[in-house]
Amino acid sequence: MQDRTKPAADGGAERADLSTTARVLGIVRSNGNTSRAEIARITGLSRSTVTLHVDRLLEHRLLLETGLASSTGGRRPYIIQFNKAAGYIGCIDLGSTTVGLGIANLGGEVVSERTYASDVQEGPEASLSRARDDIKALLDSSGLSEDRLQALCIGFPGPVECGTGRPVAPPLMSSWDRYPIREFLARDFECPVYVDNDANLMALGEQWTGLGHGIDNFLFVNVGTGIGCGIVCQGQLYRGADGCAGDIGHGEIENQSAVCRCGNIGCLEAVAAAPALVRMATEAAVREPGSKLAEHLAVHGKLMARDISYYAVQGDRSSVEIIKLSGQLIGHVLAGLANFFNPSLIILGGGVSQAGDPWLASIRHEVYRRSLPLASRNLVIQRSRLGGRAGLVGGAILATQQLLSETGLARVTAITGVK
Amino acid sequence: MQDRTKPAADGGAERADLSTTARVLGIVRSNGNTSRAEIARITGLSRSTVTLHVDRLLEHRLLLETGLASSTGGRRPYIIQFNKAAGYIGCIDLGSTTVGLGIANLGGEVVSERTYASDVQEGPEASLSRARDDIKALLDSSGLSEDRLQALCIGFPGPVECGTGRPVAPPLMSSWDRYPIREFLARDFECPVYVDNDANLMALGEQWTGLGHGIDNFLFVNVGTGIGCGIVCQGQLYRGADGCAGDIGHGEIENQSAVCRCGNIGCLEAVAAAPALVRMATEAAVREPGSKLAEHLAVHGKLMARDISYYAVQGDRSSVEIIKLSGQLIGHVLAGLANFFNPSLIILGGGVSQAGDPWLASIRHEVYRRSLPLASRNLVIQRSRLGGRAGLVGGAILATQQLLSETGLARVTAITGVK
Repeated sequence: MQDRTKPAADGGAERADLSTTARVLGIVRSNGNTSRAEIARITGLSRSTVTLHVDRLLEHRLLLETGLASSTGGRRPYIIQFNKAAGYIGCIDLGSTTVGLGIANLGGEVVSERTYASDVQEGPEASLSRARDDIKALLDSSGLSEDRLQALCIGFPGPVECGTGRPVAPPLMSSWDRYPIREFLARDFECPVYVDNDANLMALGEQWTGLGHGIDNFLFVNVGTGIGCGIVCQGQLYRGADGCAGDIGHGEIENQSAVCRCGNIGCLEAVAAAPALVRMATEAAVREPGSKLAEHLAVHGKLMARDISYYAVQGDRSSVEIIKLSGQLIGHVLAGLANFFNPSLIILGGGVSQAGDPWLASIRHEVYRRSLPLASRNLVIQRSRLGGRAGLVGGAILATQQLLSETGLARVTAITGVK
Repeated sequence: MQDRTKPAADGGAERADLSTTARVLGIVRSNGNTSRAEIARITGLSRSTVTLHVDRLLEHRLLLETGLASSTGGRRPYIIQFNKAAGYIGCIDLGSTTVGLGIANLGGEVVSERTYASDVQEGPEASLSRARDDIKALLDSSGLSEDRLQALCIGFPGPVECGTGRPVAPPLMSSWDRYPIREFLARDFECPVYVDNDANLMALGEQWTGLGHGIDNFLFVNVGTGIGCGIVCQGQLYRGADGCAGDIGHGEIENQSAVCRCGNIGCLEAVAAAPALVRMATEAAVREPGSKLAEHLAVHGKLMARDISYYAVQGDRSSVEIIKLSGQLIGHVLAGLANFFNPSLIILGGGVSQAGDPWLASIRHEVYRRSLPLASRNLVIQRSRLGGRAGLVGGAILATQQLLSETGLARVTAITGVK
C-alpha cells in the first residue's frame, strides 16, 4: 500500500475479480494463520484461483508468508498471515467534553494515544484543527512518517449520514450540522477519511478485541453527555436504513418533565445522562446545605458527574439515589430493547458507566425485572473493559474494513497495475 | 425430491461441495431466469464447476432448463429457472382465535387455503389434530398426493425456541409450554416440520411477495389477541440470540394499570391489543347506556374487536377514542423502535390492523412526533396488503429455505446417490 490518491479502474469483470480477492483477504484476517489449501476448502475455489488472489495480496504486502506449516501428507504448505503493519490508521474519538486520539495498525492495535479535554461546542473548525495537529504530532512521536497513514477515522457524538459522513441535526451542535468533516481533513491528509457515530465505533472495537468478541448480537450503550447505542447484529455493525440506528437517547420517558437539548421533553438523555446527574446533584446540594454534595459545590463552585459517582461510592445517600435513578431509567429502556432485539450481551460504556456498582445494579435489576424470561435468561450486562479505548480500536477496524473492501482494494491495485 | 426420510451422508468435503450447490441454487431462486455464464460471473467459479452444480440440481428437478436465451456472441445459453413445483409445503398459521391453513408451492404461491375459528386454549393435541386433518383434506381437494408435501411449517403466537421448535413460556397457554409440536405432526407426515413465531413468518411473507419485497430493514407488527413483531434486518429474518427477538407486547407502558395475561402490569399488549379494545368498549357501553356500543352489547351479549372498528368507522365517539388510544400506545413504542432500529418500513398486520384509518393515523402521528428527524424522514408506515395470507406465504418460504439449504440438500442427494 503506497500512494493512495489515484482513482480506481472500474471495469465490471475486474471488480468481480477483486471481490474474490477481498473475500480471500477477509478469510485470512478472521482466521489468523492459514494456508492456500484451507482458503480453497472454505471458498470452494480451485487451488490455482486461490494462488492468483493470494499472490496479488502478497505483492501488495497485505499478506505475508510467515513459514511452513506441518505437512498433512504432501508438500508442507506456506503459512499465510494478514500483515497488520501494512499501514496505520489515525483515530479520533470526538466526545462532547473529551477528545481521544490514537494511531493504530490495521489489526486494530493502538500503538500510541492521547486524550484531552475539549468542548465540541467550540465548533468544527476549532475541534478538527486541534485534532489534525495532534494526530500529526502523535505520528511524529511514534516515529511514523505521514505516508504510513492509510486512513483517518472519526467518531462523532451524534447521527452521521452514511454516504456523506456528515453529521445530521446533532442536538445542540448546530455548527456541526452537515459540516463536511471529511473534506476538512482531506485538505491536510492524503488518505481516505471515514466518519461514523461514536457508539457504532465503540461497538466495533468491543467486537474486535473486547467483551463482544465472537458475540453475534450485542449492544454497546454509551452513556456520557448523551446516550447512544451501537448495534452488532448477526456479527455485523448495524446502522439502519438511514444510518442512525441506535439513537436511544431521545425516546420519551413518561412522567419526566426535563427539557432535552433536542427540544423535546422527557427524553432518556435529559433524565439519565451526565448533565442530568449534575442537575439533580446541584438541586440536592441546594436542598441539603450540610451534605457532601453541598460542601463540594461550595468549595469547587460546580459538580461534575464523576464527583457524584465518587460520593455515591462513599455512601452519600443523595448521590446514591441519583445514580440509581439514572440506572433505573436506562434499565427501563434497555428492558424493552432486550425484548425487541434479544441480544446476548449489553455492554455499558462512556463516562457515566464508571458510576460504580449501584448504577450497574439498578440497570440489571430493571432489565431482568421487565424483560421476558426467554429474552433475559442468557443475557449478560457488563461494563466495557476497553473503556475510552473502545472508540479508537473501532475506528481502526472500520477504516481497515473499508480499505480492504473490494472498493478499497480497487484503489490499491490501480496504483501499481498489478492484476 | 422424492423420499425424505433417509439421513444425509455427512463427509466434510461433500458438505463443502453441497454448500456451493446451495449457493448456486440460491442465486437462481433470487435472480429468476439466469444462465450458467451468469452464475459463473456472480460466484467467480469456473464454468465447468458451475455446470457440475447446475447438472446436479437439474437431476433433482430443483432447476429446469426452460429454453434458449438470445446470444451474446457465442452459442445461445440455456435459460435456467428454479422449479417452484418441485414440491409443496403445508402451512399452518395458528392464531389465538383463528387458524389459517394453506398449501403452497416452493415459490411461496398459495395454491389452496382455508380459515376457521379455533381457540388456541383448547391445547396442543386438539388444535394440532384438527390442523393435521384439515391439511390432509386440503391436499386431497387440491388433487395433490401426500408424497408431494416436502415440509410442514407452523406459525405459533408466542416465543419459539429455535433449535427445538418448541414454544417457551407462552403467556396464558401453559399447555403449549415446551410442547413437541414437530414430533406430534411427524407421526402423521413423513416430511420435516418447522415451527416459528407467527410474526416472524408474516415478516418473511411480506418480504417475499408483499410490501417488504426488496426492503432490507423493516418491521412487521402483528396486532391481534397479542402484539408481536417480525424483524427483517439486512435482508434476513432476525431472531435474536435466543430466538425471541421482536417480542414487543410485554414492554411496560407507564401509567397503565391493566394486568397482562403474562402476569405483569401495564404491558403494551394489555392496553392496546384486541382484548383491551373489548374491555374498554364494554366499560364504555356500561357507562353510556344509549350508545351504539351499549345497544350492540344488549343485542349480542358481547363485543368483539371488529365491532369496535365498525362503530369507529361509523363515527361513534367512544369507539373512535378506544381505537385512537390503542394506536397512540402502539405508536409510542414504535417511535422508540424507529429510533433504535431505523427501519425504512413498518408494516401493520393482524386483526386489529383492520381497525380503520383513525388507528393507523394515531400510530403514524405518534411515531412521527417522537422519533428523530433522520430516523423518520424516509420511514413508511403501512397496513399489510397480504393480510391473513402473510403467515402462510412466510411459512412456505421458511420451509423452502430450509429444504434448499446445505443441510436440506444433503438429505436430497443422500437419497438418490447423485453426487
